[in-house]
Amino acid sequence: MPSQTVRHDALPTPPSSAARAHCVDLDEHDPLAALRERFSLPDGTIYLDGNSLGALPRATAARVADVVTREWGQDLIESWNSAGWIAAPRRVGDALAPLIGARFGEVAVADSTSVNLFKVLTVALRIAHEDTGRKLVVSEADNFPTDLYIAEGVVEQCGDGAALKLVPATASDARAAAIVAALDPSVAVLMLTHVNYRSGAMHDMKRLTRIAHESGVLVIWDLAHSVGAVPVDLHDADADFAIGCGYKYLNGGPGAPAFLWAHPRHVERFRQPLSGWMGHAAPFAFVSGYQPATGVDRFLCGTPPILSMAALECGIASLKDGDANPMRGLRAKSIAMTALFIELVEAHCGDAMLLATPRDPALRGSQVSFHARGAIAGRGYAVMQALIDRGVVGDFRKGATDDEDILRFGFTPAYLRYVDVFDAVTTIADVVASGSFRDARFDVRAAVT
Amino acid sequence: MPSQTVRHDALPTPPSSAARAHCVDLDEHDPLAALRERFSLPDGTIYLDGNSLGALPRATAARVADVVTREWGQDLIESWNSAGWIAAPRRVGDALAPLIGARFGEVAVADSTSVNLFKVLTVALRIAHEDTGRKLVVSEADNFPTDLYIAEGVVEQCGDGAALKLVPATASDARAAAIVAALDPSVAVLMLTHVNYRSGAMHDMKRLTRIAHESGVLVIWDLAHSVGAVPVDLHDADADFAIGCGYKYLNGGPGAPAFLWAHPRHVERFRQPLSGWMGHAAPFAFVSGYQPATGVDRFLCGTPPILSMAALECGIASLKDGDANPMRGLRAKSIAMTALFIELVEAHCGDAMLLATPRDPALRGSQVSFHARGAIAGRGYAVMQALIDRGVVGDFRKGATDDEDILRFGFTPAYLRYVDVFDAVTTIADVVASGSFRDARFDVRAAVT
Repeated sequence: MPSQTVRHDALPTPPSSAARAHCVDLDEHDPLAALRERFSLPDGTIYLDGNSLGALPRATAARVADVVTREWGQDLIESWNSAGWIAAPRRVGDALAPLIGARFGEVAVADSTSVNLFKVLTVALRIAHEDTGRKLVVSEADNFPTDLYIAEGVVEQCGDGAALKLVPATASDARAAAIVAALDPSVAVLMLTHVNYRSGAMHDMKRLTRIAHESGVLVIWDLAHSVGAVPVDLHDADADFAIGCGYKYLNGGPGAPAFLWAHPRHVERFRQPLSGWMGHAAPFAFVSGYQPATGVDRFLCGTPPILSMAALECGIASLKDGDANPMRGLRAKSIAMTALFIELVEAHCGDAMLLATPRDPALRGSQVSFHARGAIAGRGYAVMQALIDRGVVGDFRKGATDDEDILRFGFTPAYLRYVDVFDAVTTIADVVASGSFRDARFDVRAAVT
Repeated sequence: MPSQTVRHDALPTPPSSAARAHCVDLDEHDPLAALRERFSLPDGTIYLDGNSLGALPRATAARVADVVTREWGQDLIESWNSAGWIAAPRRVGDALAPLIGARFGEVAVADSTSVNLFKVLTVALRIAHEDTGRKLVVSEADNFPTDLYIAEGVVEQCGDGAALKLVPATASDARAAAIVAALDPSVAVLMLTHVNYRSGAMHDMKRLTRIAHESGVLVIWDLAHSVGAVPVDLHDADADFAIGCGYKYLNGGPGAPAFLWAHPRHVERFRQPLSGWMGHAAPFAFVSGYQPATGVDRFLCGTPPILSMAALECGIASLKDGDANPMRGLRAKSIAMTALFIELVEAHCGDAMLLATPRDPALRGSQVSFHARGAIAGRGYAVMQALIDRGVVGDFRKGATDDEDILRFGFTPAYLRYVDVFDAVTTIADVVASGSFRDARFDVRAAVT
């Protein structure tokens, strides 16, 4: 990439200190301000990548250490019972349930998001096929790639006419209409991610589920970028199946176990292909013949990774105060922060950054993405590297086409302050104005969602 | 169960102190004695259940704490690259490879044993079907249940005539012949566990693989009770696929990730059904269309649980000294310990305990099982609870029939001493003689392998 001199005089002035004082004031009156104290954040970093890997809750280190040294080291095998390891998939699922509008006993925490999608999509496809004879899965071309890869694997396994049809990527405001138009009478399952990983655009879960049901289509929702970020009410939406990720807004740590949910109307028919012993009706009776457990346990397969499970349990607890659902307050702050970020970036770097996320807060999750344009067109990765060097950690994604650069910023209301938003934009404006980002090259191995 | 008075005068005397001195002497001359210092073991416990959950290596607590507080807490998303998280499945696989006779770059650590079995069995069945038209999987009725449950799921998924045939349980010395007899020209895949979880009987991997290959049958070996316990040489045996468990003799911690291996001749055709992004040729390019990675990465599916992965890496390291293969020394000590245990139990509790494990050390793994008989017939669970109360931790399994009780004792040479074997038998003899075990009832929820 050729070196390029940025014309400083053409760039806007950085955010003013008067606006910073306003942000300080917002933080002082923030009803969620105390939540930040529950997290351990590195000095000098404004972490806007909690949508990829959530930050470390302060309680986690001691809890994991206790699992390692006492539960495992001292109590050994007995801890499967005495420390409740065996019940962890259901217990952590119950802790998570209120955040997604599920009821106790409906959510299991296990495996990875990809593996759980394999389970629910296989089951959904079988149920749909038995009931309607249909075998077509519909999703979006710009769904998160692993969801599409898994769907490929499922339809290949199911064989016999099963297929995956992708709705082409469109502008955010045209997505829903394009999906609805695809729901013809051959469609068995609609598989959607609630909040898009790249644009942050959020579907209307209730409306799309209703329309799909009117066409006799089952709906699977991937909540990877929703859970802990936006309120989700699976029962109110009458969803069929859901899966999601533990290491983003749930702050469960790198590679934390994922979760899965099925509407109670489907549980009895949830006979999953990964028929491992933890999903058996009597896993320790060592009887021959797979008999699925009666409830949520049948979503499980193998032995759960207890250390990672303990960290996820801390992550979920870090969002909650007793039994109250924290999502309403978190959502209000998330909207305020993302709106402030959009306003400041557009005011100070608008020539270089074009909003890629819906402006209407009802249509977006807790992240904001911008296309790189103007002085930074085609240089989005280098700009993001420069930002990270300056302590503002967002991430970079290629757009739908290869020459499209997306700068992605996640806003986790539990541990970010308004003043962080302000200071981040100050740095962004400064980096954009400086032009000091010309050497970095994008390496696809360097980006992990 | 009616109370029963044990006739003390009919029971043998406990082991003599002269024999204990001999064990102390053996420990003093044990070339592996220093290994024990690498483990944190609870005071007052003789832990004979490392075949179910291995003990805690001393290095693990600090390593996991560093992953949590520094790699995750301070370096956050950057640690996917800077701390090598993204390479962990291959790196830990390479650490493990020498223990099973695999080469570097052939083993992936990921998911659970059950999930990995689903992958390899699906792939093996497809390869066999493509090459020979066969669709029958053969295993043993007394294989570990989750293996059989997973096989049920796989053949159901594959449909179209795929089926699972089980060789009935027989005496240990008749197993191989019964398996060989089942290998008719309809058999696609032979799926065996190398060391039986209940009896500890070990198959001759090389011989059975050769015979299976002569019949055009692919062979999958489950190494759950072998890896870290007995030397395994997958290349020498010319095996086709292998899977195994990280939390038993590898001391990886509760629910540690599992591993999988495929012979290089099969890797190019290893297109697995769990086609998640971590197995993709370019997982972070976010391209549409699943393209499996060229090498061992294609065995992966979702994001690995990094905390649990770090603990497993410590567990494997705790067995090794540099690049030398530790299995020869560990095996020699394992054989000596299991032989000593058998000799002492038979000398002092032979009326109450009948050996269920092959007497020939070449035919057993690193565990010894006994049938409860005589004074403790039908009371095996209660005896084991009494032993655990006295600090001798083995475990209990129902036998092949419901009225058969198995007392199971695992011998992990890395952290057990000969004097532990002696003291354990003293306690066993004392408990058997005391009759003080009459109230405990077996609850299948209480036993976790």
